[in-house]
Parts: sequence; structure tokens; C-alpha cells
Amino acid sequence: MTDSTTSIPAESSPAAPTEALLIQEQGSFAFGGTVVERPDGATVHTDHGYVQYQIPVNAKKLPIVMWHGYGQSARTWETTPDGREGFQTLFLRRGYPVYLIDQPRRGRASTSSEGIYVPGANDEEFFFTDQAFWDAFRIGEWDRGEQPRFHAGVQFPQDPESISQYLRSGAASVGPDGFDDATREVFSDAVAALFDRIGPAILLIHSTCGAFGWRAASKSENVKAVVGYEIGPYSYPISEPPAAVPFDIPELEPWVAADLIPDESFDRLARIPIQIVWGDFLQEHAYEWAPYVARSKQFVAALRERGGDAENLFLPEIGIHGNTHFPFSDLNSLEIADQLSAWLARKGLDG
Amino acid sequence: MTDSTTSIPAESSPAAPTEALLIQEQGSFAFGGTVVERPDGATVHTDHGYVQYQIPVNAKKLPIVMWHGYGQSARTWETTPDGREGFQTLFLRRGYPVYLIDQPRRGRASTSSEGIYVPGANDEEFFFTDQAFWDAFRIGEWDRGEQPRFHAGVQFPQDPESISQYLRSGAASVGPDGFDDATREVFSDAVAALFDRIGPAILLIHSTCGAFGWRAASKSENVKAVVGYEIGPYSYPISEPPAAVPFDIPELEPWVAADLIPDESFDRLARIPIQIVWGDFLQEHAYEWAPYVARSKQFVAALRERGGDAENLFLPEIGIHGNTHFPFSDLNSLEIADQLSAWLARKGLDG
Repeated sequence: MTDSTTSIPAESSPAAPTEALLIQEQGSFAFGGTVVERPDGATVHTDHGYVQYQIPVNAKKLPIVMWHGYGQSARTWETTPDGREGFQTLFLRRGYPVYLIDQPRRGRASTSSEGIYVPGANDEEFFFTDQAFWDAFRIGEWDRGEQPRFHAGVQFPQDPESISQYLRSGAASVGPDGFDDATREVFSDAVAALFDRIGPAILLIHSTCGAFGWRAASKSENVKAVVGYEIGPYSYPISEPPAAVPFDIPELEPWVAADLIPDESFDRLARIPIQIVWGDFLQEHAYEWAPYVARSKQFVAALRERGGDAENLFLPEIGIHGNTHFPFSDLNSLEIADQLSAWLARKGLDG
Repeated sequence: MTDSTTSIPAESSPAAPTEALLIQEQGSFAFGGTVVERPDGATVHTDHGYVQYQIPVNAKKLPIVMWHGYGQSARTWETTPDGREGFQTLFLRRGYPVYLIDQPRRGRASTSSEGIYVPGANDEEFFFTDQAFWDAFRIGEWDRGEQPRFHAGVQFPQDPESISQYLRSGAASVGPDGFDDATREVFSDAVAALFDRIGPAILLIHSTCGAFGWRAASKSENVKAVVGYEIGPYSYPISEPPAAVPFDIPELEPWVAADLIPDESFDRLARIPIQIVWGDFLQEHAYEWAPYVARSKQFVAALRERGGDAENLFLPEIGIHGNTHFPFSDLNSLEIADQLSAWLARKGLDG
């Protein structure tokens, strides 16, 4: 892991959490989507996304649009598991208009053109058990029937209420949310339509959102930068597919697979600054995480080859240790926010 | 419809929508729920609700908790279809802390102990077509294959974007959300736990939320008042079931059925002020709406018999015309908000 940036100094004195927020405007609306005509002649408005926004007084020019990952909703960005302000409120305090997405078929955007069976916690095929969550997201280890264990130095609260809040942060989809081309198009078209409506803005994505976010960014000239936290799937130019990446867990195949998009779409990504941020304990969980890191390096290299401004930031390499898969809501989230502020300033996006 | 109150003067000069909002604190958290132990030994935190809150500077003592209806989410209260401020922001401006619920298995609270098939818009059993929405919620009539028509004087915007926003406001559940006793207990227990956490507060409910809201209010001493907008199911004391109410549409049975709860639970409802607010066009849609109105009158009568302070407010009877099933987001929503403000003041709940 050698392609990280050097350390960035923290932003000086953001508003303290006890100061009042001055909000000029707030609300929510649906974006994108389609209208289905049913065989019986009825119509249904569906497959749109949902966004909730707040614009602070004396706002900076470029809003930040925050897009959650797999099995999550806009809640990702709102409040930390231990009840502190999430990136939503932190970046409002720093002057950015903030837009929080529930992607199509998720959260408050929950109508779908296609039906789906949603497994319950008692079903055999239920995926996100507490133990699976704990391990996959690198908080520590948690064997069934045992108490949860924490990685030494992990930036995660250990009180029962915070743990419960964390384990209640998920949200299932009410329709297909896989990585087939049709679903990628539905989700990325919707978010591109959001950017068409709100104008130039910065996009934050998390985790599996890479399956949709890179395509969305390639579809709207209004996406002025992308910062990805621990991204799963990556897009590459169809004329230059990346080399194969080895992985041991067959179920990871859809996450590791390269999404090939038209060269001109990929070239669009090479025209905006992109940063991908990684937490700690990647070595300890290499069997699951090494393939994504490898893919991310290929992605950055492919962008740079085409003149792009892209980088991986491995937090431990700049002295920030203990982060999980959710760096923006870990105990040191202010430090992570400072990294984002500094990067945006360095790229001239904080005007 | 004779048991409505007399006209209430509008509140004087709430903050204009162009003034900045002063927010002391905002965030979100999960409430209630359970932990499922799976046959394989894994655990899952599930069946909780989700709430998003904002506390204004110099807040009044009692927050307002807003709970959506069937096929909806917290979005109900955020923004009107034509993009104006919803009750969330209007009542923040009026000094109330505001809590918006996504009930268990809905929106951002979307994990369920039990699985379910969620129909897509193309499925035969899909319920909320645009045309069904239009008719059931009394905007006007909309025949399949035709353009939507509007009731004369309806308080609803007629531009295509507002109509699209309205028809994209729904959210399906990712688990059972029917009116069986088990589901009513899951939902009402969760919301009672929310009130236990936040302390004394006012509860707003909408539509089908009556299936869960009355029970929730009966379970926490912290529920200090309930205002229901066009409520479907009602609870009654088990020792005095209400007389049968005729209805023509067999599918309405679960909505019209009386929910019988222990007398001491019902008595708790008789100790707090309760108002149920009704819009316009009830006569035109009597085949669907008359049973609910009849049930509401029985509910109010039963509460009064036990010394309760309950009333139905039929808006047309106080000169407010044209409201749909969503009075709080109709074109005259400020007038509806003024009614609520005045009622809260009259009950001494606005301190």
C-alpha cells in the first residue's frame, strides 16, 4: 500500500457541536425514476431515488452529496453509533449544503418496478447477522454464541447502546439491488438526474456504492469530484479491462468483478479529482479486503494513465489508526472529516 | 358530521419560510426492536424503528413526534408535493423539537424478523398504482389510460412535477405490516420505547397509523396528546366493543375492524387530549370513507363516556375546504398548521 498521499493538516476550528446550526433551507424530494405502465392500464411512478437536503446560511458553492453503501440508507451519514454528529451535520457546520441519498428501492425511495423476496432475520438466507457485520466491517471478531471482541485500538465505541445502534443501522432493499447491468443503470441514471437538478456538486460514496457511483459520476458533468470510502466494485474502460485479481471467497465475485464501461465514460472520471479512503486492519482481514484494495489500485492507475487526478489514501500510512469500514462515523470521525476538508481545499472545491 | 369544533383563529406570524432556521441539535437513532437468535447461533438486531430529530434553539418543552401512514415514511412530513416546507420545518419554526418516525420494517428502519415478498409495480398484486392513490386519497378521479382529474377546489397542485413528487412519496415495508395482533404489538412497543427515551411529547399520526398509534399512546405516560389526520383503524375497550359499521368494499375489512384493547389501556387514552382532523370530499367518496368517519365518531364517543377530551374536527365545517387525505401537505397546509398550533395552545401544550 504505497500510493497514499502524505499527511494533511487538520482544518482549523470548525464550529463546536454545541453551537447552533443556521439552516437557510431544508427539505426532500424524489429524483430520477420511471413510470411503469401495467398490463391492466394503470401506471406506477417507481424506481426513483430520494434525497434529503439542508443548505446552511452563507453556504459554499458546491454541495456535498452523500450516497450510502450496501444494506444501508442515508442514516450512514447522519449520526455516529455513539450519538455524535455525523458527516451530514459536520459538513453543514463547515458551510457545505448537504444532500443525503436513499438510493432507488431503499429507505424512503422504496417502490420498485420489480418485486423481490426480502429475507427476515429468521430466514436461512438472511445475510447481515450481527456476527457477519462485525467481521466484514473490521471492528473485530464475534463468534456465534460469544460476546463481541474488538481489534486492539479500533476506533469504535464499546458500550452496549452504541453497539446496538450500529447493528440497527441497516436497511434492506424492496427491489433488486444487484450488480447486473440493468440495476446499475437504474441507480446511476437516477443519481445523474439528481446532479442534473441540483447543479455542480461533490459526490461521496461508501463501500458497494462503487457499483453505481462511478457510473453515475461518468454520466453528469455536474459531478465535480468523488471521494469514496472503502469502495467495493470499480469501473474500468471497456477497451482496457484490468488484470484478474485473485480472491479466496467465491461469494465475493460480484464485488470483485470489474465493471466495464465505455471509454468515453471512463475518460469523464479522469477529468475530476478522485480520492479513495481506506481504514485500518486491512491486513488482518486480507482474505476479504485485499481484492478490493487491489482493484482500487488498478482503478487509480487506469485513471492516472489517462491523465486523471486520482489517489488512494490509506489512513494508517498518515498516522491515523484504528478505522473500520465506516471511517466517517468512527470515534475519530472529526479527524476523517478534517482529511476531507483539507482535500477539498487542496482541489479548490471549498469556495 | 356534527361533532366538530368551532373555528380556531390562526396563529399570528410564524417565522417566514425565508428566515434561517436555528437548530440546536439534530440527528437520528434506532428505537425499540428485538434481537433474534437464529437457529445457526447468530444474532440479528431487528424490528426497531428509526427516528430523525431536530431541536430548535429556545425550544418549547414538548416535542412533536410525527408518524406516517400506510405505504409512507417520514417523508410524509418533510416537504409538500409542490416543494414547500412540510410540518417538520413549519413546527421547528414554531419552536417545537420535531421527531420524524420511520416505523419498524419501513424506510430507514428496514430490517425485519420475518421475511416478505414485496410486489413490484409490474406485479398483479401491486396495490398503490397512481390511479388507486389518486382516488383513495380524494384528489379527484383518474381512470386508467386517461389524464388525472381534480376535484373542484381541491387543495392540490396541478403541475406535472408536483404530481410526480406526490406519486413518488410512497415506501413499501420489508416485513409484515398488517393489522394482526403481533404486528400491532411490535410497532406500538417500539414507539412506546421511543417516548420512554425522549420524554413527554405530542404524537401526530396519519391514516392507517391508527392501527398502531392508539396502542402506542396507551403504553407510554409520556404521550401527552394525540392529533390524528384522517385515521383508519381505531382502538376500543374490550369490555365495550363498538356497534358494527356497514361498509361496501370487502377489502376494507381490516381497516374498519375495531381493535379491542384492555380497558385500562383505553382509559389511558381518555386521560390525554385527542383530536382527529378530516379533510374534504368525504361525501363524494363515502363508499370508502364513511366507515372510518363512523368509527372515529364511535371512538370519540367512547373516550368522552370515560371522561376523555376527544373531538373530531371536520375542516369544511369551520370553513376550510378542498383538503385531501394529506391535509398537512395540501396547498393550504399553513392553515392546517395554524389549526394545530391553536389546538395545542388551547390544551396548554405549547409552553
